Amino acid sequence: APIEGAAAVRETLEGIRPEDIAEALQRLGTDEELAILRHLDAETAAYVLIELPTEDARAIINQLPDATVAHYLDILPMDDAIELREELDPERFEALLHVIPREDAQEIRRLLSYPEESAGQLMTEDFAECTPEDTMMDVLRMIRQTPDSDFETVNYIYVLSEDRHLLGLLSLKRVIRSDPMSTAREVMHDDPVTILATDGQEEAARMVARYGFSALPVLDERGRMVGIITADDAQEILEEAETEDVLRLGGVSGDAEAYLSLSIWQLIRRRLPWLLVLFIAEFFTGSVLRYYTGQAEEGGKTMLAQMMLFVPLLIGAGGNSGSQVTTTITRSLALGEVKATDWFTVMVREATIALMIGSALGFVGFLRAKLPVIGWNQPMSLSLVVGFALPAIVLWAATVGSLLPITAKRLGFDPAVMSAPFITTFVDATGLVIYFEIARRVLGAFHQTF
Amino acid sequence: APIEGAAAVRETLEGIRPEDIAEALQRLGTDEELAILRHLDAETAAYVLIELPTEDARAIINQLPDATVAHYLDILPMDDAIELREELDPERFEALLHVIPREDAQEIRRLLSYPEESAGQLMTEDFAECTPEDTMMDVLRMIRQTPDSDFETVNYIYVLSEDRHLLGLLSLKRVIRSDPMSTAREVMHDDPVTILATDGQEEAARMVARYGFSALPVLDERGRMVGIITADDAQEILEEAETEDVLRLGGVSGDAEAYLSLSIWQLIRRRLPWLLVLFIAEFFTGSVLRYYTGQAEEGGKTMLAQMMLFVPLLIGAGGNSGSQVTTTITRSLALGEVKATDWFTVMVREATIALMIGSALGFVGFLRAKLPVIGWNQPMSLSLVVGFALPAIVLWAATVGSLLPITAKRLGFDPAVMSAPFITTFVDATGLVIYFEIARRVLGAFHQTF
Repeated sequence: APIEGAAAVRETLEGIRPEDIAEALQRLGTDEELAILRHLDAETAAYVLIELPTEDARAIINQLPDATVAHYLDILPMDDAIELREELDPERFEALLHVIPREDAQEIRRLLSYPEESAGQLMTEDFAECTPEDTMMDVLRMIRQTPDSDFETVNYIYVLSEDRHLLGLLSLKRVIRSDPMSTAREVMHDDPVTILATDGQEEAARMVARYGFSALPVLDERGRMVGIITADDAQEILEEAETEDVLRLGGVSGDAEAYLSLSIWQLIRRRLPWLLVLFIAEFFTGSVLRYYTGQAEEGGKTMLAQMMLFVPLLIGAGGNSGSQVTTTITRSLALGEVKATDWFTVMVREATIALMIGSALGFVGFLRAKLPVIGWNQPMSLSLVVGFALPAIVLWAATVGSLLPITAKRLGFDPAVMSAPFITTFVDATGLVIYFEIARRVLGAFHQTF
Repeated sequence: APIEGAAAVRETLEGIRPEDIAEALQRLGTDEELAILRHLDAETAAYVLIELPTEDARAIINQLPDATVAHYLDILPMDDAIELREELDPERFEALLHVIPREDAQEIRRLLSYPEESAGQLMTEDFAECTPEDTMMDVLRMIRQTPDSDFETVNYIYVLSEDRHLLGLLSLKRVIRSDPMSTAREVMHDDPVTILATDGQEEAARMVARYGFSALPVLDERGRMVGIITADDAQEILEEAETEDVLRLGGVSGDAEAYLSLSIWQLIRRRLPWLLVLFIAEFFTGSVLRYYTGQAEEGGKTMLAQMMLFVPLLIGAGGNSGSQVTTTITRSLALGEVKATDWFTVMVREATIALMIGSALGFVGFLRAKLPVIGWNQPMSLSLVVGFALPAIVLWAATVGSLLPITAKRLGFDPAVMSAPFITTFVDATGLVIYFEIARRVLGAFHQTF
């Protein structure tokens, strides 16, 4: 149906959630997005804006007057408002902070004072608190009387000492079910799990997910409670982190953004640099081939042409087993199942597995080379070279594929930068050296020339 | 410190969460796990058991008497109790259902009557409900008087009609803050998002995550509310689904289980079948090489040796760009950013990108072949073949890498089975056909022989 005027748009989108509106808008151009957004009520529009991919949101905000953006900043919870900063010029954002209510501006500045990607930037300060002496009746009264927008959630009420140290927490359910005259100190669950504001967002999000919490209290460096991280924000961080990890494993860099919202140029920027690096790294494989071809020509070219036929098979097997290992280890590191200190255990396990898998592939490879009719009917010497090279290459690929992500983690990089394409490319060149060196020895022993 | 007796174990593990105990136990053998578990109180032990990897839990349960397992089934919320079924023989599980309270057994049977991997098997029936005529005071009284274990969460109270249709929902916060004499019908938020019990778990979990819900109501096929899916269960399903997708993209099959809890044999079972399939598929690449080598020998072998030097470079570029595309598209499909019906848009975008990226690589490849000193100083004809083959191979890899995951999705398979190693292997053989066919034409034109 054609869209006519504010009333029609509002009616059409009535009851549709901001997440769904944002998804639909992504497929339109900026002008259309803007036209529809203008017809929405301010609260929905503000939430749609933060659900839109960064680039789309930036294009829209550039077209919106300061008063509107300031209004959005004001409506949104502070931890969401902070996300809009990414889409604004620093000067404009700074200017807007002077327009919105002073208290909000101060909270935004406080959150922004924490390091990038830290739990402090993800948290909200709008949590419900009480003193240990408050009774359940006091707590309920407080919840009844505080304006709705002051709390991100009241499912937990945090019991703070006078110097704002976290003594314990109360679930709202427990508050309702306990004797109205009992104090928070009596009823509270003590020893809650907490995180530091300077800890990483992903770490905080993993903790929320691991324990199934609906919120995680955040402390500053002096142990005072400064905010909470809610499960929905944690979920969003995890999904972004996982998307970035998955793409990185596939050799694509960049922030998590919806595929269809990215332009062709943006997609190229995320892919071409890696491809070029890998492409140039692959030059080395050609050089290895050329070196051994030269050697073979000097030695009389024995079996060189036949040997070349096995090159894709050998580098394929190395690449595929390396991909399996690096994917498995990178994922285990991300989930915290494997720590960097486990490197030795991991290496021994992977080496054992590689020897067994490599031997199986070696046997099949030997049959492929040696057998007449179903195979290529090659001489025993070359068939043995293929059979021995496979376990050696797979062992090498597994060692590289397991140790590189762990080393990256130790050095403080994201292990996922040791992507499958990276391992594959690295194993291509080095795997061929293994192949030709085995050939030189075995064929040398059989023929006295190579 | 050495562990001595129940008291010491209990004291050492005091205040440690089941998730953390489970992680520590995974690194021990079954006997030690069992010894420690026996010293824990039953509730903690039951939760530790469901956090343990399937294989570990199965080994332990085999050693536990029926009475203990039945006790655990009884303690756990039903949606968690159901997880224990995977670790029990079907007969033993059936027998245990006769030991536990009849009501619990009936609930377990009801949940199990839903399809495998369905929302129905993930939900809990323990949600808080009220009628539309109940006042806020009634609702609070109900929450005060119902035993604690009857609700998985009371953060939302569901307003049901007499025939158990969902009319709306109340947040506990709203119940507290509203006029005590107002009715649920007046206060409730209507038109809640719901899901069918027969819908998939992953779909339900994605919906919980997308909207940041703490619980999602589940309806049966007649529209009656039968349960809720809580955010922590949804989170667990998503993490497992994501782990399985990541591993599948890396060419590893199997359920999400912690790396260190898997035995060497289990890891081999998850990897060797794929490697063997890919290995045998790679035979085809050898056959392609052999066919064109044969052709070239008949034609006088012009430049065959030099041509071979570029093989790893070309199949590497095809494999890497194919990996990028398949990883990007698979992830977008999983997140719902791209639908199967978007195949044409995706193909056109990817083809455009591939032509641009391929041309860039082609130019660099041409320079590598042609330039003296820093390159290989090859004749113009072969350098042109390399320069033209690259965009053609990259275009082909991108088309295959984008369409195969979408086709898998359309046919109802997990798109992640179209893993990067699969695409890479497929592109190896077919990419070489492209290379040699271009060579045959270009070199034929230059030399009249190939």
